[in-house]
Formats: sequence, structure tokens, C-alpha cells
Amino acid sequence: MEEVSNKQLLLKNYVSGYPKESDMVLATSTIKLKLPEGSNGVLVKNLYLSCDPYMGPRMKNLNNGFFIEPFKLGSPITGNGICKVLKSGNPNFKEGDLVSGVTGWEQYSVIESTKYMSKIQNTDVPLSYYTGLLGMPGMTAYAGFFEVCSPKKGEYVFISAASGAVGQLVGQFAKLLGCYVVGSAGRNEKVDLLKNKFGFDEAFNYKEESDFDVALKRYFPEGIDIYFDNVGGKLLDAVLQNMRSHARISVCGMISQYNLEQTEGVHNLTNLVWKSARMVGFLVADYYHLYPKFLEYVMPYLKEGKIVYVEDIAEGLKSAPKALVGLFNGCNVGKQVVLVSSE
Amino acid sequence: MEEVSNKQLLLKNYVSGYPKESDMVLATSTIKLKLPEGSNGVLVKNLYLSCDPYMGPRMKNLNNGFFIEPFKLGSPITGNGICKVLKSGNPNFKEGDLVSGVTGWEQYSVIESTKYMSKIQNTDVPLSYYTGLLGMPGMTAYAGFFEVCSPKKGEYVFISAASGAVGQLVGQFAKLLGCYVVGSAGRNEKVDLLKNKFGFDEAFNYKEESDFDVALKRYFPEGIDIYFDNVGGKLLDAVLQNMRSHARISVCGMISQYNLEQTEGVHNLTNLVWKSARMVGFLVADYYHLYPKFLEYVMPYLKEGKIVYVEDIAEGLKSAPKALVGLFNGCNVGKQVVLVSSE
Repeated sequence: MEEVSNKQLLLKNYVSGYPKESDMVLATSTIKLKLPEGSNGVLVKNLYLSCDPYMGPRMKNLNNGFFIEPFKLGSPITGNGICKVLKSGNPNFKEGDLVSGVTGWEQYSVIESTKYMSKIQNTDVPLSYYTGLLGMPGMTAYAGFFEVCSPKKGEYVFISAASGAVGQLVGQFAKLLGCYVVGSAGRNEKVDLLKNKFGFDEAFNYKEESDFDVALKRYFPEGIDIYFDNVGGKLLDAVLQNMRSHARISVCGMISQYNLEQTEGVHNLTNLVWKSARMVGFLVADYYHLYPKFLEYVMPYLKEGKIVYVEDIAEGLKSAPKALVGLFNGCNVGKQVVLVSSE
Repeated sequence: MEEVSNKQLLLKNYVSGYPKESDMVLATSTIKLKLPEGSNGVLVKNLYLSCDPYMGPRMKNLNNGFFIEPFKLGSPITGNGICKVLKSGNPNFKEGDLVSGVTGWEQYSVIESTKYMSKIQNTDVPLSYYTGLLGMPGMTAYAGFFEVCSPKKGEYVFISAASGAVGQLVGQFAKLLGCYVVGSAGRNEKVDLLKNKFGFDEAFNYKEESDFDVALKRYFPEGIDIYFDNVGGKLLDAVLQNMRSHARISVCGMISQYNLEQTEGVHNLTNLVWKSARMVGFLVADYYHLYPKFLEYVMPYLKEGKIVYVEDIAEGLKSAPKALVGLFNGCNVGKQVVLVSSE
């Protein structure tokens, strides 16, 4: 029975404040390329790993109602990934299948629960897209925009963290629908992408704005109909002051708040009443029944080049800590992926 | 042509912070009991005036997106009222009709715009109910609970300012639907009402709680499905920490915040994401098409005594400043009304 070396990225300690590379450690163990007797799971080789904002709170030992449990100390970090099946104890998967689902941050993983694992059918797009455009972030953008916001042609749409895995898609969806779309990001390189690659009407670098209220009034003199919130905090507070009547805020995430010891206070919530506005939090898990509808929507645009997708691919498991930490500091340009193995 | 004395309550100056009785002044003018030539309006005698929380922000000269303009300095305060028509230039109203609508805080008013005025058909309930149970607050409770929250039997419902004009009804509606209902109020007398008159399952005096999170965990060990928010601020923040998955917050008002120089910061909004929860602001004006449906729902319960309504009636226009100011300090027990004239 073949036993091979298995590099793993372990969580060393629970994080307080912003995660650091030193909170993780690269270790090497060995693994037998064989499933346990009677297993219904799969043994996979990990190809791509996805870095996602929700992983930040999982690195902390919180007891604050976060929707998913903390990572286990001393165990490999887990997250979405793209894998090749090496051994299968499950009739739905066979050797050689490419699958996407929750896996470990290591070279090889035994995955006992395949409930959320799916076989990749269409391989004429980059495989890594199944961590982004065609994966959880794509589905998040689709559900969070179309289902949560009920957008209409001509509406004024603002997106924060707009060049990220989700934001870049929301902006393109909104443009395809005929909305006026403005995005914010934290680097001029990203602002350029928003305007020149993703076709946003306007974009700005929030780090160059001293007053978000002034910035929003510049781009939305008539106010905002839809805010796709990826960041929370002060920018959300300024949006609340600049809403049109019946505005909708899709609360996808609040990445600016996840690593603060004390979250920022939001002061302008009374505007929800005056503007008959709503803030709707959502988890993409509630919307996966729409995945076929999403593919039907997105694939033709992708093939025609009317939707594009920018990824930031870090090479090798050893670069994974830097990639994950960088996500919380805005270092990534586009969807952050880690390439573990190209085959 | 008959000219009579007309006592009026004028706004003397714009308010900063909490309104004071001295911000208003009682004046006496005269009025000819006659409509201007060619008027389509009505001349009315005011019987009951309604004191409502939204009137607080109208006493301030704000430019902050509040949905309705400030009161005019030196003019009578305006608000909902119950009136008797003395003269009519409008075919929809005739002399002697009892009407509800926006009127002035004075004995007699000429109302040129009758767009939001309606004739009172059913006079076998107390007339004053048309400022509360059968008026704007009743419609607010109905729409804000049933339409905004989509409540289900057995859900866990929390209501703040629960003995007020709106809250007491939301609680009774929720109990009739079969929910578990807890209310908060600021005086023990009100807590007694909630438990013993309105049939809430539990109630507490928020002024006797040093930690709202602890208080909510006591009454909702399994969390809150629906929060009907009348107050905003710190209590809202604690609710955000105690929501069940897919919770709904109906933001009816945030009376605790209206008179602060700087509103309190709300820190726990990330829970909207983790709990797939929503906060929905609304204005009752969007729901008046449901008024007949509301009456159909509420009238049988009212007649059977299964819905009760507590009012706090101040007598005479001279008592109006105290009544209105008291609303922002929780002095009223039940719906605050001013009786100007009993006929």
C-alpha cells in the first residue's frame, strides 16, 4: 500500500485581531493512499484551495453566534477546494473525477462527508473558476444581487470590496441588467480594474476619501437604490445616509469588522425607517437550489466574454498563509486562490 | 359671519435635544367660521389630537433625510386628529361629518388638502380610537407585524415600547396568532399592563436591567425570531446578539435615538449575515391599501373583547405640550391622545 508525504497547513493557535502568517504552520505528515475499510467517502488530491473572508472568524475561538465552528487547533485548515478523486467508497464519485467541495489545506485529504461535494462536469473553463465564478462566490453574487435585492434596470447600485471574488461579479451582473454601477476598493490598481475591465460606471479608492458621505454624494447625487455590502462599518454608515426611498442593502459580509477587537458602531440606522429601506443578511447555503438557474444565466455570458473573472493565484501550499492573511488586508487582486497541484 | 376665538399651540423655536414644553406656546387668535371663496377643503372643529413619535424629529430643523418636513415656526403644530366638519367645499364631506386626518393643534382648522382625510363610518367605538387602534398606529402594527415580519404560529416575538400605541397591538396580534410574546417598557405599571391586560407571556422593565443581553437570554433562551423595534439603540444591539436563524426585525421606529445629539452606535450588525436575518424599515403610508383588510381582521376581535386598547387622554389643548413632551420620556401609559373638545 502506497504511503506518500502529505504537506499540511495547520492552525497553530487561535487568532486575536488580524490573522498573521505565524498563526499557521506548514507540517509534513504521511498518508496511505487508501480509504479506511467500509468508508463511503473519497480520498482526494487537492488541486486548488479557496481563500474566503468567512475563514477569518473561523481562526478565532469565538462564542459570538458565528454560523460555523472554529477551525480545530493543530489540524489542517479547511475550506472550499477543487480536488481529483484518487479512491472512492461512494458510488457518486469515481477515480479520476474532478470535484469541488469542502476539503483540507493539505496535499491529500480523506473526505468522509461528501454531502456538499459536487462533480465538475464542464471542464472547458479554468478549473480554478469552481472556487470563484462558478463556485460559492459566484452563487453568492447571483443570489445576493438578484434574489436579495430584486434589482431593476436603471437603478443606482453601489458595491464595496468591488474587485473581490463576489463584488466583481455583482457589478457585472448589475451592468448587464442596465443599472448604474459604482464600486469601491482599496487600491488604485483595483479601481482601474473596476472601470476598465469590469465595466463599472465609476469607481473610487476608499483609502483616498476622507469623508465617505462626501464621496457617495459625488457618485450618487440622487442616492443609492442598492448597496451590496461586503465590508460593513463606516462605509455602511455613510450608505445609510445616502439611500433612496425603498433602498435595499444586501449584507453579504462585513470584512472590515471581522478582525477588530471592538466593531465600529453604526449610527445612521434610523434612515431605515425614513427611507423604508431594508438590510438583508444572507448565507449562500440557503440558495444552492438555484445553482442550475445560475449556470444557465452565467455560462452564455462567460462564453461570449461578456462576463470576465479576475483571479489572484498563489502557487504552492507554502504560499497559502500569506494568501489567506493577505485577504484581510486587501492584498489580493480578484479572487484569491491557492494552487496546490496542477494535476 | 361668525368669528370665534381659536386657541392654537405654536412651535416657538426649533428644538435641540429633547423637546421641552417651553418650545411651544399657547396663543389665541380668531377665526371666521367660513371657508375661503372657492375652497375645496373643509373647516373643522378639532376633537382629538394624536401625539406620535415621528413628531419629535419634526420639531427639529434637520436636514438629515427625515421623511417629512419640519414644523413651521410660529404656526400650529400639525398631526393626526379627529375632527367634526363645520363647513365643506368638498363633495366627499358634509357638515357634521366626523373625519380623521392631518389637522392643526388648535380648536378650529381650515384644511385645504383632504387627500389623506377619511370619513369615520363606525361610531360605536370610542372616537379617539381613530387616532390609535383604528388609525395610523393600528395600521402600523398590522402592516409592520403581518406584512413586514411574515410571522408564524409558535415563533418567539419581542416588542420594545410594548405598551405604546403600536406595541400593545403588535403583542396582542402575535398572541392571537399563537406566538410566544415578550415586551419591554420603562415603568413597572406598564410591565403590569403587558402581562395582565394585554396577555403578553412575559414583560420586563428595561430600566431595571443592567445588561440587555442577559435580560434577553433570560426570556429567550432559544433566541428571537421576530423583533418589533420601536426604540433602536442599545436594545436593538442586544437583540442582534440574540437572533435565531432567519430572524426578522421590523423597524417601526427608534424613539430612543430621535432626541440624542449623537445617536448610539450599533455594533452587532455582522449577526445579520451569520443569522441570515433582516432589518426592514417601513412607513405605514405604503400599506394603507390594506386598511379594509385590517378592519376586517381587527373589528371582530375588538367587539369580542379579544383585543383591548389602552389610551392616555390629556384634557384640553393647554395640556398638549406636556403630553407631547411626555411621549419622549415615556410618561404616557398607552396611546397618548389630547382631547380638545368632546363634541
